[in-house]
Amino acid sequence: MAIKVHGNAMSTATQRVLACLNEKGLCYEFVSIDMRAGEHKKEPFTTINPFGQVPGLEDEDLKLFESRAISQYIAYAYADKGTPLVFTDPKKMAIVAVGMEVEAHHFDGPASKLAWELGFKPMMGMVTDDAIAKEHEAQLAKVLDLYEIRLTECKYLSGDTFTLTDLHHLPTVTCLMGTSAKALFDARPHVSAWVADIMARPAWQKVVAKNN
Amino acid sequence: MAIKVHGNAMSTATQRVLACLNEKGLCYEFVSIDMRAGEHKKEPFTTINPFGQVPGLEDEDLKLFESRAISQYIAYAYADKGTPLVFTDPKKMAIVAVGMEVEAHHFDGPASKLAWELGFKPMMGMVTDDAIAKEHEAQLAKVLDLYEIRLTECKYLSGDTFTLTDLHHLPTVTCLMGTSAKALFDARPHVSAWVADIMARPAWQKVVAKNN
Repeated sequence: MAIKVHGNAMSTATQRVLACLNEKGLCYEFVSIDMRAGEHKKEPFTTINPFGQVPGLEDEDLKLFESRAISQYIAYAYADKGTPLVFTDPKKMAIVAVGMEVEAHHFDGPASKLAWELGFKPMMGMVTDDAIAKEHEAQLAKVLDLYEIRLTECKYLSGDTFTLTDLHHLPTVTCLMGTSAKALFDARPHVSAWVADIMARPAWQKVVAKNN
Repeated sequence: MAIKVHGNAMSTATQRVLACLNEKGLCYEFVSIDMRAGEHKKEPFTTINPFGQVPGLEDEDLKLFESRAISQYIAYAYADKGTPLVFTDPKKMAIVAVGMEVEAHHFDGPASKLAWELGFKPMMGMVTDDAIAKEHEAQLAKVLDLYEIRLTECKYLSGDTFTLTDLHHLPTVTCLMGTSAKALFDARPHVSAWVADIMARPAWQKVVAKNN
């Protein structure tokens, strides 16, 4: 049985999983979940994720949810295929673990809220709340200041090679590059070069192409 | 050089790391960070964590931050010591990865905010915001409903043995057991038995004893 991804092409969390599968060169079947019809809150999807959020993954008898847990599973289970996204050395892997936690607990909050205010809301004919957008821009700027310093020390956030840390950022970064928040990235030369580098990866371009 | 933990005994994130070190039976030096004096926002602490949050960990030349990244490092780097907290089998480990993500993204938000409203605020002479507390109680109840189902399937959240998933919950669960939110756990028999089991672990009792 092939790997099955249950998700929505517009969901950044789904895109994170697809990017990972593409980096590994794995074939998969995509099962589209109609979120407007609330399919993510009903069976059969909730038998994969009882919290009712996309994506879900099936690999033989294994059912997983939470995009960052899925990407880690793919990276370890298919370690011998495609791009190495994790390390076997515990010290090297610890740096990746820190980077993934920083993405989840510092970057993703303001970045996702900004993507909502500046990207999704206008697209759906809703009005951006400028005060909320400014607050999240200020928070994101602080994180990007630390990323700028980090990226003077190494080419990618968790070392000199592309890892899960960088991959986890791709969906939200790409979304923000189509909004006025792009200026926050452009103003920081090392961050800007990193964004250009990771967004150009063929595995990610395949995900982007499906949405256009 | 021994392992050094830079943290604060009152911080739940610091306690998470200490619980992990105790489960592994590792010796460590504890460097107390005076958060009232703002030591976590200044050098030398910010050379370990530029985000200025406790705890930080030093192990020889390695400097880490983010409690859940530190616990993962300890579990992998000292795999042959003490309690096994992770698995080498990718499918078994994937279940732990999902559990850790659920703790971080579903449990910890409402649980930590409730611990603040019902635990820390009264302790510091501040007034609990009942409306906010109720909102977080309702959110936490939904998570605990899913935990109750999960714990009918296996003894611990990520299988039949104690893993990092359970360990990551300990500090906030323990804090809430000293508040009116204890009723949320008591009302669910499998959750209640799980709480009693994990809180009784000698490694955790050592952390609790230091705070009394």
